[in-house]
Amino acid sequence: MAYKKSKNKNKRIQIIPLGGVGEIGKNMFVIKYEDEILVLDAGLSFPEDEMLGVDAVIPNISYLLENKKNLKGIILSHGHEDHIGALPYIINDLNVPIWGTKLTLGMVKAKLSEFNQVRKPELKEITPRDKVTLSDNIQLEFFRTNHSIPDCVGVIIKTPAGIVVYTSDYKFDQTPVNSLVTDYDKLAKLGKSNVMVMLSDSTNAVTPGYAGSEKEVGKALDDIFRMAEGRIIVATFASNIHRVQQVVNSAVKYNRKIAITGRSLFNTTKIARELGYLDIPDDFLVDLDQLENLLPHEITVITTGSQGEPMSALTRLAKSEHRNLKIANGDTVIVSASPIPGNEKMVFRTIDNLFKLGAEVYYHQMSGVHVSGHGAEEEIKMMLNMVQPRYLIPVHGEYRHMVHLAKISEKVGIPKENVFFAENGSVIEFSSKGGKKLKKVTAGKVLLDGLGVGDVGNIVLKDRKVLSEDGIVIVVIVLDDKKVVGSPEIITRGFVYVRESEELLDEAKNIIIKYFKKIKQDKKKEKDENVIKNGIRDKMSRLFWEKTGRNPMILPIIMKANN
Amino acid sequence: MAYKKSKNKNKRIQIIPLGGVGEIGKNMFVIKYEDEILVLDAGLSFPEDEMLGVDAVIPNISYLLENKKNLKGIILSHGHEDHIGALPYIINDLNVPIWGTKLTLGMVKAKLSEFNQVRKPELKEITPRDKVTLSDNIQLEFFRTNHSIPDCVGVIIKTPAGIVVYTSDYKFDQTPVNSLVTDYDKLAKLGKSNVMVMLSDSTNAVTPGYAGSEKEVGKALDDIFRMAEGRIIVATFASNIHRVQQVVNSAVKYNRKIAITGRSLFNTTKIARELGYLDIPDDFLVDLDQLENLLPHEITVITTGSQGEPMSALTRLAKSEHRNLKIANGDTVIVSASPIPGNEKMVFRTIDNLFKLGAEVYYHQMSGVHVSGHGAEEEIKMMLNMVQPRYLIPVHGEYRHMVHLAKISEKVGIPKENVFFAENGSVIEFSSKGGKKLKKVTAGKVLLDGLGVGDVGNIVLKDRKVLSEDGIVIVVIVLDDKKVVGSPEIITRGFVYVRESEELLDEAKNIIIKYFKKIKQDKKKEKDENVIKNGIRDKMSRLFWEKTGRNPMILPIIMKANN
Repeated sequence: MAYKKSKNKNKRIQIIPLGGVGEIGKNMFVIKYEDEILVLDAGLSFPEDEMLGVDAVIPNISYLLENKKNLKGIILSHGHEDHIGALPYIINDLNVPIWGTKLTLGMVKAKLSEFNQVRKPELKEITPRDKVTLSDNIQLEFFRTNHSIPDCVGVIIKTPAGIVVYTSDYKFDQTPVNSLVTDYDKLAKLGKSNVMVMLSDSTNAVTPGYAGSEKEVGKALDDIFRMAEGRIIVATFASNIHRVQQVVNSAVKYNRKIAITGRSLFNTTKIARELGYLDIPDDFLVDLDQLENLLPHEITVITTGSQGEPMSALTRLAKSEHRNLKIANGDTVIVSASPIPGNEKMVFRTIDNLFKLGAEVYYHQMSGVHVSGHGAEEEIKMMLNMVQPRYLIPVHGEYRHMVHLAKISEKVGIPKENVFFAENGSVIEFSSKGGKKLKKVTAGKVLLDGLGVGDVGNIVLKDRKVLSEDGIVIVVIVLDDKKVVGSPEIITRGFVYVRESEELLDEAKNIIIKYFKKIKQDKKKEKDENVIKNGIRDKMSRLFWEKTGRNPMILPIIMKANN
Repeated sequence: MAYKKSKNKNKRIQIIPLGGVGEIGKNMFVIKYEDEILVLDAGLSFPEDEMLGVDAVIPNISYLLENKKNLKGIILSHGHEDHIGALPYIINDLNVPIWGTKLTLGMVKAKLSEFNQVRKPELKEITPRDKVTLSDNIQLEFFRTNHSIPDCVGVIIKTPAGIVVYTSDYKFDQTPVNSLVTDYDKLAKLGKSNVMVMLSDSTNAVTPGYAGSEKEVGKALDDIFRMAEGRIIVATFASNIHRVQQVVNSAVKYNRKIAITGRSLFNTTKIARELGYLDIPDDFLVDLDQLENLLPHEITVITTGSQGEPMSALTRLAKSEHRNLKIANGDTVIVSASPIPGNEKMVFRTIDNLFKLGAEVYYHQMSGVHVSGHGAEEEIKMMLNMVQPRYLIPVHGEYRHMVHLAKISEKVGIPKENVFFAENGSVIEFSSKGGKKLKKVTAGKVLLDGLGVGDVGNIVLKDRKVLSEDGIVIVVIVLDDKKVVGSPEIITRGFVYVRESEELLDEAKNIIIKYFKKIKQDKKKEKDENVIKNGIRDKMSRLFWEKTGRNPMILPIIMKANN
């Protein structure tokens, strides 16, 4: 050990999160040894409430572009959107190989195939048993973990400066659906290998105890299947293959056919079946339009929409807007997921609507129909106790989750000063002398909106906010040689109900007309369009605030009749 | 009993919820016996996500206006916004007395005083021991309940047709802070009085067990006070006087001065102190700007903002934007509330920000710092077992809560067919022959936005939604005798970042110019402005969808240069 230490004395390694700290989403962590860098995961996140109209958010990869020639590859831990979702948007600019397990790469391929102009990257399949030599100095190993999607791995990065362990998302499921438990032996060995730093999932650090085994959900589902007399509809995350497998198992056991609805679920189950991660007997799988030939107790439907997403199959079912299927008295609906913070109201509205249609609804507030894929406090302790890292960087969590992870690590003996709180863009350097924060690099959010990548910024979002709250009032005047021609036009959208506000809008018009009469007497003002526009904005804002208590966007437009 | 029954044979009573069923908010229940009607509560609700820019929602009271001459009064159960908040907006149109307990009326007075043009209604103070003779046929009695605000009552409405019981919000707190337990004797007596129908709080019907006593929170708070070395900041609901009292008790015990910040909390504590519901020793109360003269361990601050409300004191503290106070290392912040569904993200963001500033933060996910004011499953059973109503109308709940209440009532022996699910506007009539639903009356939502009451409807909200997601593109052209004068003007807001979209907007302009050239050759089309507008809308929508994947609102404006 002493020898090893001295050997590593001046070697340094840097950890640079470009996404995934202080947030759950857009995971992307850079590991840098000397000039060489590698990237762990490339995820997207869902927009915050104030990002009106935005579809998704990816990390700013300026740092990777600047260091492109030293980038050795991207390593994916699993196939969730917050770990692979940014790939289609960054892959054209980063010509590097991508490593991942079979299912993960299967999902990446499916995703990339939806983007026409995205190049096909070099995809390198690994198993948890593989070793990958990334360069003379960097070797990768992997360990199998349990999570809410199969084929997850944690990553061990071996460098001359020391070992970095990236847990990615994990829990310890002692009875996983596919019987493949965590690679305890590897974790235990790591504990004897003097691991320098660990990046650890913080998601459930606030939750005491254990997350619970996925198989417990299977039992709860089976109880519901045993009792239900009508159709059974189960909603879950498209990527939760183990959950789908358990639904299938119960369906087969009680001799119910299985129909799948929802595009993402359809695609994912197709991939999972092709790659051998999901077993649905062919003769049990039916199309939605075949359901009408079956009796209610012969039917299981698996669907998307567990988050109450407005366009999802379950939401359409709940609103009686689904083309093939109508929920009715006697149906049993299982929402086998818990709402992601921010989605509660949409989820509850869907549940309420299903109850109104007469269905019996089981959901997360009734025990048993869902467990989390992220380890709780005791599992985090177990991971820390096995791997025994010298330094810890809490990742994959909002700030409070990271704080709670630090509290937990203190309980198992990692001193406070060895836990490093990063922000996206932080550079934390570790050597045998310790860890320290260096100057930050560029990092941040790139907003996706429609086809636009990064073209929506603060100005656009601010405008959308004002427009969303109080609407817009447009004032158009036509000037002919500095004389107003005709009458000003006032048009509003999202401000007041126009038919009932004629009086108000007439008053506004009169104020504008009076204002222009006054301007005419003042030769100087007349010349400056901006002064006129500000005058209009001012007078209109004041009037509308007084009369309605609202602050619409005021947009004066001056047109010329003489050019 | 047989005599009583025959006497009531042809008498009927109607229950008409105008708000508060299928929702938590804007509670308003009409009880009608023959021609006479009375109103239980008059609350507001907070806007749904899709009600962009809306401040609050009150019930549509058309039914009350139509039956104004038969309206005997409004009875308030307690001082929460969802039970009294609509009063300022309806009281001018309904000239009837209002009954409530001392604190409830105190809060009503304070609320009404904020509205200049609202008439002062006749306020009649009651205690839980009072009987009120509303008319020859209607007598009211009350029973004290426990909830998250003091001075709550349930209402017993005695009519020749039978007895109606309105629980309003309740839990059974065996150790309430003010020692005033529920009026068990009255509830037990009701159980022997052949209660016809009960309107029961459904809020926590999904929660197993008991809500827990408010005093347990006091103990948890006291533990935190005992350990804390720096300043303590506690955020809670302004109306939760008992919670405030317990914070005060701990502050006094550990010899800390108390400062209060947040307008609503300031006002409520003032009223509660004046009326004798809150005991803060004068020499412990300090102004915020006196805090700088005190040591950290001598300071307690009680604040609003437990829901992460953007403008609240706690949110400003968390963003370091509070005028008098800066959160720093060593401070302890207790968020003594749990997030109302929909507020989770805002609450968590505030907590994260407080952690970032170095504070130790206690919040709802750590046990002990909050209990609900609504009874859980076992308390609901207790209420049902004591009152033994023949019929039950679940109220004060979203649909799933009402369903769960029905399930609970079945467990304690109320048959399914005796539970009536109402919607706002439903008329449910009860007599000795049973209950039945009659034709619905007008009910619904009146949206408050700024000074506007009901002037924002679906058209305005739809426009705000489109504007919020993709912004607006305004196309202005000036016509001089059917000839386009000058160049069309294209202005966007909330759509794209204009400086980086010059090319796109130039393309749009060229399309418009080309379109007008084409129109000129077609004499017929030229005449119809609407055809031109639709043409512009069409061409612009197609272009922008193709190039950006977005659907902004397209607003063509045609100005005349010659009138």
